[in-house]
Amino acid sequence: MSDIREPAAVYEYTHVVQYYETDAMRVVHHSNYIRWMEECRLDYMAKLGLPYDKMEENGVIVPVISASCEYKEATRYGETVKIIGEMERFDGLRFFLTYRITDPAGDVLHAVGRTGHCFLNRNMKPINIKKTAPEIYEVFRYFK
Amino acid sequence: MSDIREPAAVYEYTHVVQYYETDAMRVVHHSNYIRWMEECRLDYMAKLGLPYDKMEENGVIVPVISASCEYKEATRYGETVKIIGEMERFDGLRFFLTYRITDPAGDVLHAVGRTGHCFLNRNMKPINIKKTAPEIYEVFRYFK
Amino acid sequence: MSDIREPAAVYEYTHVVQYYETDAMRVVHHSNYIRWMEECRLDYMAKLGLPYDKMEENGVIVPVISASCEYKEATRYGETVKIIGEMERFDGLRFFLTYRITDPAGDVLHAVGRTGHCFLNRNMKPINIKKTAPEIYEVFRYFK
Amino acid sequence: MSDIREPAAVYEYTHVVQYYETDAMRVVHHSNYIRWMEECRLDYMAKLGLPYDKMEENGVIVPVISASCEYKEATRYGETVKIIGEMERFDGLRFFLTYRITDPAGDVLHAVGRTGHCFLNRNMKPINIKKTAPEIYEVFRYFK
Repeated sequence: MSDIREPAAVYEYTHVVQYYETDAMRVVHHSNYIRWMEECRLDYMAKLGLPYDKMEENGVIVPVISASCEYKEATRYGETVKIIGEMERFDGLRFFLTYRITDPAGDVLHAVGRTGHCFLNRNMKPINIKKTAPEIYEVFRYFK
Repeated sequence: MSDIREPAAVYEYTHVVQYYETDAMRVVHHSNYIRWMEECRLDYMAKLGLPYDKMEENGVIVPVISASCEYKEATRYGETVKIIGEMERFDGLRFFLTYRITDPAGDVLHAVGRTGHCFLNRNMKPINIKKTAPEIYEVFRYFK
Repeated sequence: MSDIREPAAVYEYTHVVQYYETDAMRVVHHSNYIRWMEECRLDYMAKLGLPYDKMEENGVIVPVISASCEYKEATRYGETVKIIGEMERFDGLRFFLTYRITDPAGDVLHAVGRTGHCFLNRNMKPINIKKTAPEIYEVFRYFK
Repeated sequence: MSDIREPAAVYEYTHVVQYYETDAMRVVHHSNYIRWMEECRLDYMAKLGLPYDKMEENGVIVPVISASCEYKEATRYGETVKIIGEMERFDGLRFFLTYRITDPAGDVLHAVGRTGHCFLNRNMKPINIKKTAPEIYEVFRYFK
């Protein structure tokens, strides 16, 4: 009866650990997990039909308003990680994702994280996407 | 009667924003705030008599077990930020710092953050510093 | 008559541009091209049977002794690049690679680069791999 | 008779090595030297009266067209480096700097490098600064 598809609330992304991501502890520097969450999130949004380069071209900026990570097991050069991003909720103005970073098999939990985001226009002023970017709202409303 | 000085629980660190820290939003990429907290923290520990390179030489590793940041006002190339690190507490095994990132005058709050840390030996096993590194414990016990 | 295979002197690697790699010029920061060359090089060495994490475990360190890059056409978030690494030569002690960074179709030349490397032991002293690591020499001698 | 001062062709910049700049070799990752050259260069330009944020505001973009570095002696966390930038030449369209990275006393040469730059407008098209930005030309003409 309908071709409206509910977008997947969970997205799996794979990252190969790079040597330049390690530090003198011989493990990945903790700041890079924050970057991996971004990799996962932007790839996820592209798969939802919202590639971020196009959003910016259309004048919609999606900054990070909060980020957190708990580090469980270090990752090392030579390893690959799986990042499972989950759209936690969208409150009309802001949205939040959680992330689980594991080994490829999902047996080792390396870290868990969370980020929060809002929508701004080119002048860095908050916007109501329901009004100004309904095509974006159409995707996010499934996560309300 | 005593020359034991209580170490300062608050430390102020200055960072000049670098161009390579910016991203295509023309503001500093959010992951760099996590790095600035590290700059502040390690400089603070050095001032407390615990330079981290010497701690590592002595076999004490201090990883990050948690990190979080709330982003309030973006920072841009050409700006300088002040990072006020505060030792929040030490529970005998772990310690926690909070950070306020402001403009040099302290009028604009750019971000607030928090990190947690533990003590490991070279084999990445948790250690009780009271027993294995009493000179480190001597500093941290003031923050209990 | 023989199963000795000559290793490929050219290796093609794909990198998806990340948002955190951009800077306030809205293009990828030039320092990241040096990192992309490392990604290509280490993946190439792994394919040659020399995964770098195993080399380090076996006490062979391969630092960068020189790196250069000429920037032709900027790359942006949303793009994918192809990095074609080529083993230029091995002189018994050092080896050199060149890199061409292009769009996926190979029509746009974004940058060309070159890196030089030597072999060290764990104490950061130069080693003659023909003597101390003949299994590595076996691979590199094809590039002499 | 004249108050026209020739700008200094050599500029000294100090950088404190950060932990997040190290890699699993326990030394600074080679890509960061390229970033240090940028730190030195932009600070130098600011001292010459050409702060880069103001140049960009005025529509003048100064990208890197080439960068190279020879690595001599590794740097480690806990160290401070001195970067001596020297304006090598300006040919009317492009300018080139060389860099010497040493320990603070100048006894240990860690690396030497070189970068090349041109001038673009906001649309990333080359400009002749003598015509379009004479105040910038006034500074650079001393390096012709």
